[in-house]
Amino acid sequence: MAQNLKNIKAIAYDIDGVMTNGGVLCTQDGDLLRTYDSKDSFAVRMATMHGFPVAVITGGASRTIVLRAKMFGVKEEDVYLSSRNKIKDFNDFISRHGLDASEVMYFGDDLPDVPVLKACGRGVAPADACEEAKAAADVVSEYPGGHWCVRKAIEEVMKAQDKWYFDVDAYEKTFK
Amino acid sequence: MAQNLKNIKAIAYDIDGVMTNGGVLCTQDGDLLRTYDSKDSFAVRMATMHGFPVAVITGGASRTIVLRAKMFGVKEEDVYLSSRNKIKDFNDFISRHGLDASEVMYFGDDLPDVPVLKACGRGVAPADACEEAKAAADVVSEYPGGHWCVRKAIEEVMKAQDKWYFDVDAYEKTFK
Amino acid sequence: MAQNLKNIKAIAYDIDGVMTNGGVLCTQDGDLLRTYDSKDSFAVRMATMHGFPVAVITGGASRTIVLRAKMFGVKEEDVYLSSRNKIKDFNDFISRHGLDASEVMYFGDDLPDVPVLKACGRGVAPADACEEAKAAADVVSEYPGGHWCVRKAIEEVMKAQDKWYFDVDAYEKTFK
Amino acid sequence: MAQNLKNIKAIAYDIDGVMTNGGVLCTQDGDLLRTYDSKDSFAVRMATMHGFPVAVITGGASRTIVLRAKMFGVKEEDVYLSSRNKIKDFNDFISRHGLDASEVMYFGDDLPDVPVLKACGRGVAPADACEEAKAAADVVSEYPGGHWCVRKAIEEVMKAQDKWYFDVDAYEKTFK
Repeated sequence: MAQNLKNIKAIAYDIDGVMTNGGVLCTQDGDLLRTYDSKDSFAVRMATMHGFPVAVITGGASRTIVLRAKMFGVKEEDVYLSSRNKIKDFNDFISRHGLDASEVMYFGDDLPDVPVLKACGRGVAPADACEEAKAAADVVSEYPGGHWCVRKAIEEVMKAQDKWYFDVDAYEKTFK
Repeated sequence: MAQNLKNIKAIAYDIDGVMTNGGVLCTQDGDLLRTYDSKDSFAVRMATMHGFPVAVITGGASRTIVLRAKMFGVKEEDVYLSSRNKIKDFNDFISRHGLDASEVMYFGDDLPDVPVLKACGRGVAPADACEEAKAAADVVSEYPGGHWCVRKAIEEVMKAQDKWYFDVDAYEKTFK
Repeated sequence: MAQNLKNIKAIAYDIDGVMTNGGVLCTQDGDLLRTYDSKDSFAVRMATMHGFPVAVITGGASRTIVLRAKMFGVKEEDVYLSSRNKIKDFNDFISRHGLDASEVMYFGDDLPDVPVLKACGRGVAPADACEEAKAAADVVSEYPGGHWCVRKAIEEVMKAQDKWYFDVDAYEKTFK
Repeated sequence: MAQNLKNIKAIAYDIDGVMTNGGVLCTQDGDLLRTYDSKDSFAVRMATMHGFPVAVITGGASRTIVLRAKMFGVKEEDVYLSSRNKIKDFNDFISRHGLDASEVMYFGDDLPDVPVLKACGRGVAPADACEEAKAAADVVSEYPGGHWCVRKAIEEVMKAQDKWYFDVDAYEKTFK
C-alpha cells in the first residue's frame, strides 16, 4: 500500500456525501447549496498547490460547486457537473491530463461511483458510504463524508511523497 | 416480512424529521428551508425511476418542498403541503393511483403521522421519532431522520424486488 | 415532581442553545439565522393550541425569531428580543398574564438565564448547558439544546395534565 | 498551569474549525457563510467586556467574519482576513496592543496555525484539530471546534482571574 501511495499523481472526487456530509440546502429558487469542511478543503488546496491535477465528478448541477472548487485551485474544465456516467467523465479527465487510471485516487460514496472506485488506483469510500461503494473501494475511511475523510486520505498520500508541508510563500503565490 | 417487502408498490413520506433531521432554517422573509441528504434523495430517485408512485405528505408549507420533490421525480400533484389531516391526504393519494393502503410504505416521525403509519402496508419510523410514532410503525429504523433512514428502507424494498440497480441510460432518460 | 408538572400553566424559553443547538448562521447583511427542530416546534404549537401562554426571552435581535415564534402560536408581545436582564422580562411576562412564577416552566442554557431558572416553577437546562445553568435548573434534560430537550419537557407537562393529544380539527382552527 | 491562566491578558483565534465546526456554506455569489455557536460567542463577549484585547486571524476572506466579530466586541482593526502568514499577523496584533506573546491565548486547528500555537502563551487546539496543531498546542480541548472548545478555555482563564460573572448593567453599557 505504501508503494501505491507514492504512485498517486492526481485526485478526483464526488461532492455529496464525500466533500460534504451529504446535506444539500434547497433555496427558494431551487438551487442546492453545500457546506464544505475547512480541513478537507485545505487538503485539496495543498494538493493543487503541489501540482496534483484535481477533478470534481458530481451528479450535482449547482454553479456553486464550480465556484467552490476554483477556490481550492481546481480548474473549471476539471469540474464535471450533472455527471451520471461517471466512468466516462473520469476517463475524459485522465486522458486530457495524460494520466493512467492507476495514478488517480478517487473518492465516492454511492452507486454511480462504483465503476470509478473500481477503475482508479486508490478508491476511497467514507465510513458512511453505501455497502456497494465500500465493497468497490480499496480503502474505507474511518471518517464519514464531510469531515476528515478526504483530508486524511490526501494527507496520507502527500506525506508518503514528502509533500505535506505548508509553504506560506508558495501558498500566497498560488492563491491571490 | 420478506413477503411484505415484495408487496410494496408505492412510497409516501413526511418531510421534517424523516427526509431531514428535523431542522428548518428560518429566513428573513419567514420561509423555512430544509437540508436534504443526498443518499436518501438518491433512493427516492431510484424509486420514481423504477415506476413507484411517490407522495410527500407534510405539515410544511414552503414551496421549496415541491421544488426539491420534483428533482427526485415526484409529481407536483403528489406533494401535499400544509397537511394536518394526513390520513385524508394519504387516502387521496392511494385512490388517485388505484393503490391499496397495504401496498404503500409510509415514513413518519410525529403525532400527525400515527394514523397513516397504522393504515399503510409498511410504516417506518426513524430512530429519533416520538414514542407514539414508533409504537404505530411496523419498523423502527436504526437510523435517525435525515441520514439513512429513508435510504435503507427503500433500498430494502427495492432489493427484495430485484430493482436496486443503477442504470445510467435509464437515469439519463428519466432526468434531464 | 408530578404535582409540580400539574401546576405549570405557562412556558417561557431562551432561543440559542435551547430551541436551537446554539448555532447562528451569519448572513451577508449581518443578520443571524437559526435552525429550529420540527419536533421541538411541534411541542410549542401543542402548548399554545391548548391555551398555554408562551414567551420567548432571548438575547438575540433578529426579526426572524419573532416570525418563527408566531408560527408556533406565540404572540408577538410575548417575544422579548435583545433581552439582557431576563428576570425583568420574565416578570413582565408573568404580570401581564396574571401568572405566578411558580406556574411557569422556563428553559435556559447560559449565565443570563440563571436568575430565571431559579425564579420559575420548573427550570429546565439542556444536557449541554453551562454548569451554572445546570446548577440553577430543577431538571437537566438528557437531550442537548435543539433536538428533543424542549419537546420532552413540554410533552411531560402536558401528559401529566392529559393535554398531549393531537386534535386535527382544533389544530386547523388555531392555525390557518 | 494555574499561574499561566492568570497571565493571559488577550485572546486570538482562528475561525474555521475553531469558532465553527469547520463548515462553510457556499452561496450563489461565492461567499462563504459560517455558523457560530452561541455559548462560544458569549465567552468572547465576556472577554471583550472585561477588557481583553481579542484578535481574529483567519484564512477566510468573507466580510461576514468582520460583521460577526464586531458583535462580540472585537475591533475591526483586530480582524485579520485572508491571513496566510499567521505569525506575522499575530505579531502585528501583540505589538499594536503592547502585549508579550506569552500573555496571549491562541486557538488554532490546522497547519497555518502551528507557528502561532508555538509562540503564544497558551495554545489551544480543538479535539478534532490536525495532529500537527495538537502537538504544537499547550492544551488539547476535550471539545471539537464550534461547540464548547473556545467557551471552556476562555471560561477557565476568566475564572482563574475572578472575571467570570455576568453583570447586566456593564453588559448593556458595552453593547447597545
